[in-house]
Amino acid sequence: MTYRIDNLQYANWSEKIFRQMREGGVDAVHVTISYHENFRETVLNFEQWNRWFEQFPDLIFHGQWGSDVRKARETGRTAIFFGFQNPSPIEDDIDLVEILHKLGARFMQLTYNNQSLLATGCYEADDSGITRMGKQVIKEMNRVGLVIDMSHSADRSTIEAAEISERPITITHANLHSWQPALRNKRDDVVRAVTENGGMMGFSMYPHHLKDKSNCTVESFCEMIARAAETFGAEHFGLGSDLCQDQPDSIVEWMRVGRWSKEIDYGEGSAAAPGFPPQPDWFKDNRDFGNIENGLRKIGFSESETAGIMGNNWLRFYDENFGPQQI
Amino acid sequence: MTYRIDNLQYANWSEKIFRQMREGGVDAVHVTISYHENFRETVLNFEQWNRWFEQFPDLIFHGQWGSDVRKARETGRTAIFFGFQNPSPIEDDIDLVEILHKLGARFMQLTYNNQSLLATGCYEADDSGITRMGKQVIKEMNRVGLVIDMSHSADRSTIEAAEISERPITITHANLHSWQPALRNKRDDVVRAVTENGGMMGFSMYPHHLKDKSNCTVESFCEMIARAAETFGAEHFGLGSDLCQDQPDSIVEWMRVGRWSKEIDYGEGSAAAPGFPPQPDWFKDNRDFGNIENGLRKIGFSESETAGIMGNNWLRFYDENFGPQQI
Repeated sequence: MTYRIDNLQYANWSEKIFRQMREGGVDAVHVTISYHENFRETVLNFEQWNRWFEQFPDLIFHGQWGSDVRKARETGRTAIFFGFQNPSPIEDDIDLVEILHKLGARFMQLTYNNQSLLATGCYEADDSGITRMGKQVIKEMNRVGLVIDMSHSADRSTIEAAEISERPITITHANLHSWQPALRNKRDDVVRAVTENGGMMGFSMYPHHLKDKSNCTVESFCEMIARAAETFGAEHFGLGSDLCQDQPDSIVEWMRVGRWSKEIDYGEGSAAAPGFPPQPDWFKDNRDFGNIENGLRKIGFSESETAGIMGNNWLRFYDENFGPQQI
Repeated sequence: MTYRIDNLQYANWSEKIFRQMREGGVDAVHVTISYHENFRETVLNFEQWNRWFEQFPDLIFHGQWGSDVRKARETGRTAIFFGFQNPSPIEDDIDLVEILHKLGARFMQLTYNNQSLLATGCYEADDSGITRMGKQVIKEMNRVGLVIDMSHSADRSTIEAAEISERPITITHANLHSWQPALRNKRDDVVRAVTENGGMMGFSMYPHHLKDKSNCTVESFCEMIARAAETFGAEHFGLGSDLCQDQPDSIVEWMRVGRWSKEIDYGEGSAAAPGFPPQPDWFKDNRDFGNIENGLRKIGFSESETAGIMGNNWLRFYDENFGPQQI
């Protein structure tokens, strides 16, 4: 059985997109529900999703466990898993880790580009690693089953998180730095630190993370995956498209600046091209996962390796890491 | 005219203490109203002070400007200035700097022991300096007249803050590390960075920061002040007693742990002595400032230098730094 899981999207959600998930046979999507939101604002985002679950019960439902991915396949729907790209939802309060896990959060980045209370983001000039609070919060995330995501973190912080965490950690959406030397893509020693302890990395189809950006070919993308699989083992990889479908450019500005600066910061963009870049033609929306599956087969992945990368590896990870720590 | 200003207290406030301020001839006190409180909780603390101002109008009033210290002297009352020992009241929102200044906040530490969103605290293993958000917030604090306080920050962060800030910064409560090598006391290069740009440092009478702790003599304390004045200039120093009068030991535990850890952390204390240490006998409460004034004279300070350290230096600083930046 090949499950299809996209382990990172942040679309401007609509019935249209939920129907495209079904057309694309997507069994589960990990959606970001917080970039800069504090606890109360994050609860508003849970509320919004509860409305959608109530409105579109034939298309989507709230996924909490690996078994919900199987249930999604059996009932012809898409299971929606929640995650945060910043620890802002826990504010300065370690006890909010358990509260948010109970509400359904399953992934939390320790940083989003900037320094957080827990670790250093990839846009800071200097990386001091996991902080005093960070060490405590990692322990608590391990305990309850909230998965650590270091996609937007700096290298030292990521390697330290992998060392300190007693459970596998993730990079939900990024590519190999050796393929496309973007600030957000990951150097080999970082990928190794994450994957060698059972961790997972999801490959991103966000143009700034692709070689030749919007003009990247699916062949080149699958070549990178083949290189990653050869070096670190195919079982540690999946997809995390970072699809931001139908979002206005004001959203990428907010992602970059939040409430922390009165000046604009262009992040991966520039003053000349401040908005979202266009998606490559082989991955416009949730209906296009077949292009990647075909590309993986063509480059020489076996059926079981292809199934792993398309979703089975994430499913195994979900099964093992969303529940309380076994001691 | 000698004004008496204590530039840091965190007492368990009561009518008794307000009357002791009057008995001690204290014209102004900078009181901490936030250690770990977020914005909403900080507003509750402003509200509590408004109640006290309403209840004890003959003893205290809300100080906002240097002129309020003179008004306090003229009307026989104590002006209460507000400050934060952590940037938690601005949460992740740079625009709260102006809001809180308008509410009356005049000092804000960029960190309290731990890493913050702005800088590194003195208890972290590694100090990466002022963060991306920190640089933006320093600019905004400069603009509105919210004074930077680095008392609980790590060395590199403090030196960088002094460099980045276009207005003088402060260490409101600490002593010389060369006199008492406490983690919280300041090395000479840090004191130099802060004072050489017009900044101020307040000397602390908190026993963990004193040589021989609770057994410190006023002579030894004044010797340290003399050494500091000789090295960096007497005009850059004042008092910031860190008096935590009548607080139960549960408060020092909360100061240390806040909401960031489920494990206890003893900070400057220990498992054997987790609570507040006893004050030295020459500084028990607000009635004892005369002991320090006499000590300063005895060690050889001139009348004007003594007046400066007792309060006039802080008053000059208040006059110059609480209003909007002149451009």
